[in-house]
Order: sequence, then structure tokens, then C-alpha cells
Amino acid sequence: MTTTESERRAWAYLARVAEPPCVPLTALVAEVGVLEAAAAVARGLVPRGHESVLKATRARAGDDRSESDLAVAEKCGARLVTPDDDEWPGFSLLALANADTGERGGMPLVLWARGPARLDDLAVSSIALVGSRAASSYGEHVTGLLVEELVEYGWGIVSGAAFGIDGVAHRAALASGGATMAVLACGIDRDYPAAHSRLLAEIAERGVVVSEYPPHTTAARHRFLTRNRLVAALSNAVVVVEAGARSGAVSTAAWAVKLGRPLGAVPGPVTSATSVGCHELIADGRALLVADGAAVRTMAVPDGGGVTDRGTTRNTDGLTPIQQRVHDALPGRGAVTVEEVVFSAGVQIGEVRAALAVLELGGLVAMQGSGWRLA
Amino acid sequence: MTTTESERRAWAYLARVAEPPCVPLTALVAEVGVLEAAAAVARGLVPRGHESVLKATRARAGDDRSESDLAVAEKCGARLVTPDDDEWPGFSLLALANADTGERGGMPLVLWARGPARLDDLAVSSIALVGSRAASSYGEHVTGLLVEELVEYGWGIVSGAAFGIDGVAHRAALASGGATMAVLACGIDRDYPAAHSRLLAEIAERGVVVSEYPPHTTAARHRFLTRNRLVAALSNAVVVVEAGARSGAVSTAAWAVKLGRPLGAVPGPVTSATSVGCHELIADGRALLVADGAAVRTMAVPDGGGVTDRGTTRNTDGLTPIQQRVHDALPGRGAVTVEEVVFSAGVQIGEVRAALAVLELGGLVAMQGSGWRLA
Repeated sequence: MTTTESERRAWAYLARVAEPPCVPLTALVAEVGVLEAAAAVARGLVPRGHESVLKATRARAGDDRSESDLAVAEKCGARLVTPDDDEWPGFSLLALANADTGERGGMPLVLWARGPARLDDLAVSSIALVGSRAASSYGEHVTGLLVEELVEYGWGIVSGAAFGIDGVAHRAALASGGATMAVLACGIDRDYPAAHSRLLAEIAERGVVVSEYPPHTTAARHRFLTRNRLVAALSNAVVVVEAGARSGAVSTAAWAVKLGRPLGAVPGPVTSATSVGCHELIADGRALLVADGAAVRTMAVPDGGGVTDRGTTRNTDGLTPIQQRVHDALPGRGAVTVEEVVFSAGVQIGEVRAALAVLELGGLVAMQGSGWRLA
Repeated sequence: MTTTESERRAWAYLARVAEPPCVPLTALVAEVGVLEAAAAVARGLVPRGHESVLKATRARAGDDRSESDLAVAEKCGARLVTPDDDEWPGFSLLALANADTGERGGMPLVLWARGPARLDDLAVSSIALVGSRAASSYGEHVTGLLVEELVEYGWGIVSGAAFGIDGVAHRAALASGGATMAVLACGIDRDYPAAHSRLLAEIAERGVVVSEYPPHTTAARHRFLTRNRLVAALSNAVVVVEAGARSGAVSTAAWAVKLGRPLGAVPGPVTSATSVGCHELIADGRALLVADGAAVRTMAVPDGGGVTDRGTTRNTDGLTPIQQRVHDALPGRGAVTVEEVVFSAGVQIGEVRAALAVLELGGLVAMQGSGWRLA
């Protein structure tokens, strides 16, 4: 689909008119289209049922900075990516998870992207590696080893460009010649942290830097937490390499679980404070223990194949009992909702989501509307 | 029950007449009593259905060394413990596991014990800590920390007196003033390894050294593997602190799983060869990740209490879904077999055994004959 200039302006206007993610606004755009949605927000008159959009956009509706935002993006080499673009990633799991997680859990309305890598490609062939800002030398060493292996298997590396594990993950990906994506909690024109401006420039040169925030947006605590959901949503699986008990990486891990993404954690010495979060995730059964790249690959693609094998193995060999039950709960024809699968499989909703995600990766099931069907 | 001198002689005779464990011999004794069993073996004429005893005892039946074995034991301060003695531990799980594991999995016929601690007491209040002979300093350090915590919680420590983790576990238990049991793969009069003779003497002074092998028996590879089942059977839970990919500790872990004993493993650096076995056990779901003594306690007694709390909490709060299903599958009156529980709970046999073991520890179920009933 070709986006007209007025549509681009409308997307850019709506991208700033409410703090993202704004579920009511995304819903309005999905229903009436971006041009009509922008016009409705601008004049403060929305279709019946969409009144909550007005509250969310009241403060910024009269301030159309779309032209300057697009100009700033262009100046820093960034592009606006919308659901109209081919490279728009699916985000089906984010849409599904929305009911559980409220507005913070919605799909992004748009993404600003800087760098040659296509978002849709990376989102289906990447592992997110996250961890402590205050990483230990053990954690940094293991991150390097893991990234090297994963890149060799053909995976890209997604992370948050922060100090510690994030930065090492991006650097190791670049050093190994792998693709890498940095998801920011600030505007695409900003370098955060500032000390990583050179790293971000390198990622933008050979991978991609991405943000759902309009240009000039500053990093803020609530935006890190919101950003973490995109790290989980824009990868096939999430691995926590090192995390203290209250690390932000645990928030990304929680998003992985909510989205049904395979989640792994790397163990470390029990005497190390920066492994406590990883050990808790494993001990609670939220994360699988992953000790090397092969284990991450098996977790991300349970048929044991590499990225390039995805979709070629379509039988149900090697499924866990729960995955098998979820698979068998899908009807021979037509689609059913997650809740219907929960009911007929007798499996809890979180596990159903996790199983559907795995089955989707294996090419066994597919989304249809807001439901799921056998592929 | 008081054991007569002729019964003691009969037990001692039978304890040497076949390589332990000898399931047919144990079955014969259970059916006809120790005196008649000894007489039958000595004259080479056994009741119909027990013919396999003859093959197992043919080589040694004519060689009654019971008098000298009892004398050797007495000289080194050891006692013969038989199912007739009050301190005989239950071994119900070993009896149950027998069908799966063949002769090597049977109950011991007798135990030789050296030291003041009672076997039955320690068997229901101990954690087995096992691991690599070639332990790292990390593994030794963590063993010391764990033992100190566990002793503080009131647990005894069971291990195999080997170099590495085993030795550190016993020493740390003695140093913390805790009870400890060393299970040998050789005769009770032997010090194996010889370099641990002083350690074994200290254990015999304040804890207990135990063996199912008659005096003078030398340690041999197959006896280590057989001994490992007793380490698992004589403790409430097994923890592998450090293990290479082919460590003997993994065999003890396998016995823990077969016997339905809670099994934990301590993680370590993924770059350490001596943590590979632990990580495999955790990643495969055979072992829980345990990072400290509190986690071991929770694993061994899921209601979260210490040893002294066992039996006081008899409700089903805190059970896992599988434990709950197994519990609910037991009838209001009477006992059922494990296979019947498997059928009615729809849970795999290994998981049923594990759940029954946990429920038994929690005082919720009890063995009755070869079946299980609600307590």
C-alpha cells in the first residue's frame, strides 16, 4: 500500500497526540482509517463508542507538529513506519495481551525507525537479550558468548541500548556481523544514554534503532517499562542474561510471559547479586534455564531448527503435553478465541498464549482476526 | 521386637550370601522369615516361586561367615540393623520403585551402621547433598553455605563421603554441629577413600556411617551406583551442588527422580564444566533450581515449614496442581495402587510417585501395604 503525504501527516499527528501506547486511539484508527481519525481528534468530535479518545488527546489535539516531527526524523535519517507499511511487524500478541494489561499493553500506533534493517524481518528472526545495567564481568562475558553463537545460527539481537548487558549485546552483535535492533524509550532523534551515542550510530548504520515516541521525547521511568514490552514483542524469544532482584530486565521478562514469548534466563553463581533475578525466574518456572546458544535456539524454535527452518516442520512431534492439548483444542475449520481454547483445552490462559506463540512459530497455527485457527 | 542371637546370625549370613540388593532374597525373607530363609538358602531348597534365590546365592551359600562378620562389625563399633529393629528406615519408595528398576533397585536386606545417630530419625530429617569429586572452589564454598543454613533449619546432611562436594558437605555439617550420615559403597569396616579415614571416624563419632555391604567388601564401580540409591532413599530430598556432564552425582539425581524424592540442583557459571550437570538437570525439568537453604527447605517440605513442622500442617494449601490431582485421586476410604492413581488422576507415573512422596511428607497420605491411602 502506498501512503499518501496526507496520510503520513495524519499518522505523525496522531503519534504525538496521546502518550503511546493509546489503545482507544489505535482502535479508532483501525475503525475509521487514519485520515478520518486525525480529523476527528483535531475537531474534538469522535464516533460514538470512541469517547475515551477525547480525554486521551485533549491536551495535545490542538498542537499539530507532524510536519516538524517528520522533518526532524528525516534529518536524523529516521523513517515513520505505520501499519500501512510492508515492514510493519505483526504485534498480534500485543493486541491479544491488551485485555490483561490495560492501556500500557497496547500495540504501538506507529514506529519511528532509523537504520537499514526491516522491522518485520528482524521481529521474526531475533532474540532479545536483556539484563542488568550494573552487569558483572561474568554477565558481560556470557552475553558476548551467547550473541556470537546466536548470530552464527542466523538470529538477530534485540535489546534496549542501556548500559551493561544491553550495550554488550548490541556491540557483540555488530562485532559478529549480526543484525541488531535497539528499542528506545525516548524520541528517535535522541541518544539515550548519551554515552551510547556512538553505539546507537553504529546500530543505525548496520541494524535499526526504533521508538514509538515522537521526536524530542525524553526518556522517563514509565517509558522504560512501556518500551520493555516492545523489546519482548519485537523478538522471537527473550533471554535475561543477568538481573538483580529488582532489575528492569525482570519487567521485560514479565512482558515476555504476558505475550507468550519463550523466556529464558542464564544462571550464574548463587553468590552473585546480579544473578538473583535470573535464578528467581527459573525457580518459579517463568523462565527456562539456558546455558548456551543452542538452548536458546531450541527454546525459540522448539523443533530444533534454525531461523531458516521455521515453517518447514509442521508436524506436532516434540510438542509439550500442554502445547499438544492447545493444538488439539483448535477446530478443524474456522477460528476460536483464546478464551475458547482455555475452556476446551483446560489449560490456563497464560499457558495457552505461550503455547499458541510456540505453535505459531512452528507454523502449526495462525491468527485469524482476533482468534486462532490451525495453519 | 527383640532379635535373638540366631536371628542376628541368620541376617548376617543372608547379608553376604548374595550381592546386595537382591530382590528375590528380600522377598523370600519377607515371606518365610529370616530363620527359615537362611535355612532354605543354606540347604539349597527354597519354596516354590522363589527359585531365583538359588541362582543368586549359589556361589556363597556354603560359606557362612556371619560370626566373623558380626565380630568385625563389633570391633569397629558397628551394629547390624535389620527390618526387625526400631531404627530400620521405611524404604517404602525403594520397594515401590523396584518394578521399574530391576534388582539394583531393591530395598537393602540389612544395613551395617557405625555411629550414635539413629537411621530412621536421620532418614526423615535429612537432605542429601552430592556433587563432583573434582569440585571447584565455587562448589565447595556454596556447599558450606548451604549446609550451614540447612543445619540451622534442623536438617541432617546425607552424602557419600567421597572427595569434593561429599566431603565438604560432611565436614560442614560436623562444623555446624549438625547430624550427618555417610553412605559407603564398601564394607563398614573400610575407609573409602582412605584419605577420608579421619573424616569417617568423626562422622562415626557424632553422626552415622552406613553400608549395606558385608565387612571387608571393597568399593567397586557398580557398588557406587547402587550405593547412590541409598543416598537418595535415606534423605528427604537430594540436592546436586556441582556436577559435570557425567558425574556420579547425576546417578544419585536419577535415583531421586525414580524414588519420587524432591530433587534440587544449584546453578553456577555457565562457563564452569562442573555446573554443566546441574544446569542440564534444571533445564530438563528433572531438578528444581535451588539457590539457598530456604529454597531447599521449601522443596523438601512444600508447606514451607522446617523439619519440626512436618505433619502439623495437614491441609492441602500450597500443593501444586499435580499434587492436588494426585491427592484428590485417593479414595475417601481404603488404599489404591500407584497405577490406579495414575489412571484416575491422569498424571504420569513418575509425577504420581513424586507427588505421593511430597504428600506423605506433608502427612496428607500414607502407605498401606503396597498401596496408598489418605492419612
